[in-house]
Amino acid sequence: MEFRLKPRIGVMGPALCLPDVYGLAREVGFLIGKKGAILICGGKGGVMEASARGAREAGGISIGILPGASAEEANPFIDIPIVTDLGNARNAINVLTSQVIIAIHGSYGTLSEIALALKCHTPVVGLGTWDLTPPGGEELPITYARNAEEAVTAALNLIATHAGNVRI
Amino acid sequence: MEFRLKPRIGVMGPALCLPDVYGLAREVGFLIGKKGAILICGGKGGVMEASARGAREAGGISIGILPGASAEEANPFIDIPIVTDLGNARNAINVLTSQVIIAIHGSYGTLSEIALALKCHTPVVGLGTWDLTPPGGEELPITYARNAEEAVTAALNLIATHAGNVRI
Amino acid sequence: MEFRLKPRIGVMGPALCLPDVYGLAREVGFLIGKKGAILICGGKGGVMEASARGAREAGGISIGILPGASAEEANPFIDIPIVTDLGNARNAINVLTSQVIIAIHGSYGTLSEIALALKCHTPVVGLGTWDLTPPGGEELPITYARNAEEAVTAALNLIATHAGNVRI
Amino acid sequence: MEFRLKPRIGVMGPALCLPDVYGLAREVGFLIGKKGAILICGGKGGVMEASARGAREAGGISIGILPGASAEEANPFIDIPIVTDLGNARNAINVLTSQVIIAIHGSYGTLSEIALALKCHTPVVGLGTWDLTPPGGEELPITYARNAEEAVTAALNLIATHAGNVRI
Repeated sequence: MEFRLKPRIGVMGPALCLPDVYGLAREVGFLIGKKGAILICGGKGGVMEASARGAREAGGISIGILPGASAEEANPFIDIPIVTDLGNARNAINVLTSQVIIAIHGSYGTLSEIALALKCHTPVVGLGTWDLTPPGGEELPITYARNAEEAVTAALNLIATHAGNVRI
Repeated sequence: MEFRLKPRIGVMGPALCLPDVYGLAREVGFLIGKKGAILICGGKGGVMEASARGAREAGGISIGILPGASAEEANPFIDIPIVTDLGNARNAINVLTSQVIIAIHGSYGTLSEIALALKCHTPVVGLGTWDLTPPGGEELPITYARNAEEAVTAALNLIATHAGNVRI
Repeated sequence: MEFRLKPRIGVMGPALCLPDVYGLAREVGFLIGKKGAILICGGKGGVMEASARGAREAGGISIGILPGASAEEANPFIDIPIVTDLGNARNAINVLTSQVIIAIHGSYGTLSEIALALKCHTPVVGLGTWDLTPPGGEELPITYARNAEEAVTAALNLIATHAGNVRI
Repeated sequence: MEFRLKPRIGVMGPALCLPDVYGLAREVGFLIGKKGAILICGGKGGVMEASARGAREAGGISIGILPGASAEEANPFIDIPIVTDLGNARNAINVLTSQVIIAIHGSYGTLSEIALALKCHTPVVGLGTWDLTPPGGEELPITYARNAEEAVTAALNLIATHAGNVRI
């Protein structure tokens, strides 16, 4: 079990989502698990649950970084719960622990994770997520994917090309 | 000194900014101080420094919620430094402590503060800041202001109208 | 209002306490306020409330660093609430923000604050608090006081003598 | 890989330690790994490294909850790094994520973890650690062990008997 060498891919998305977004997140999680990567997520419902479910279906492993004070709030597909009791401040941990994040659709929490990832230089892949224009109008370093396969491929490539500062 | 009854207005913006943005933030801070409100900010340079400077010039008071482990990183206009050593996770505290935030211009950190404020129901006033479109395309509950005076007036109004759940 | 030059003294103690401990904490808070120092505390009941009450009675100012997500949980004597939503992790902020702490009596939370203060080199004054013996048996850098006056005097002296690394 | 059903045992201890303490922590980690439990630790040197090393030698798995902003600060025996950038505030996460902690020897950080564990009702096993007397003189709910085997057996028993509120 060489966990240390496995890439860590974060999947960020809303706790409540429609079935098509759930299905998309599940597919992303499945591909992450199949590639032998570790899934990092917020541990709760919606996109977080769907991606952890997909990872489990592929025989992968998932980490859920929870906002509350009890492991019992984790969705049933989380393998290892990290219990923070930090509320939304735990979003900063999600994006530092991930070597790349895939933002799927997304509510305000997801937007904060995109922003925090950009801030701490964790690469971001967007999949049907927020459209963002900075005050200066410059282009953001976000890779936009059109489907689950493109997103996971882009994520793995971003980890590979950031090899210099990859967080082991 | 009835601090407890004073409104708490957060000013969020980048640590590095051009002179015109610095001047705008200073004006916002000045108006906040003049209105007898407490200025909440991240305690560092750029927009944070400018707004604290303005608050001091108006005889107001400023709180700097710092990301590092030492009060010495506060800019010289911060009256009371709060030393968190939480890195970017401290952004969540900035927006919970403020009863309303004014986002001025803005980098990734500011974007995360807008997102976290929306998430925890702290009203947001934007002043030359990010342009954001959610995945669903719906309008965001952000009040856009065109100048310092409009921004501070809007902020005070938002506190007044949120009176039901105002954080004392 | 030269807040920036005022010393910041933390008072740490249990949220539930007997009347004699409450009275002691109130006296400590009063002396802190009278000396023109800023009181830092956890913002809730018991020793935290008593010390903030004393500070107000002396015309001083108090900061309450709250564990929950709403300023409404602050006791009525807190002047400026800092809303963290970090649970017990906010204890680390209490001791970083204070230039010295006075630990009064104390439950588990107080013990954690003594430990975190020792860890981050914030001087500690003990007033009827925990008796601690490290595994190696060495003496701890804690100043033990016998009453409120001794405690506040020791606290101010510790800030003065730590002047080299005083957090402004 | 039924990680979800595996107990999570925290090992808390100083980042710098003498060889006998290192050896003891390694033995504790080995027994944790052998029992099929997941090792939770702070991810750095000394007791943290020794326990993770022991866990790996037994074919187990270790989680390192790091204080800094980079996974590269993890010791070489950590399987999955959790990157918090929270400084000492991450100690609160260590004890919430663990279903029981074993405190080995210990410096100030370890003392804070014992205190935070007691505060959030995570059972504590002590192995050559701090001697603590509360202000009221009452006995603390700490199980003292004399060697690695006793400590790990006690830890597993504590998880089993706390079954009612076990964090899954």
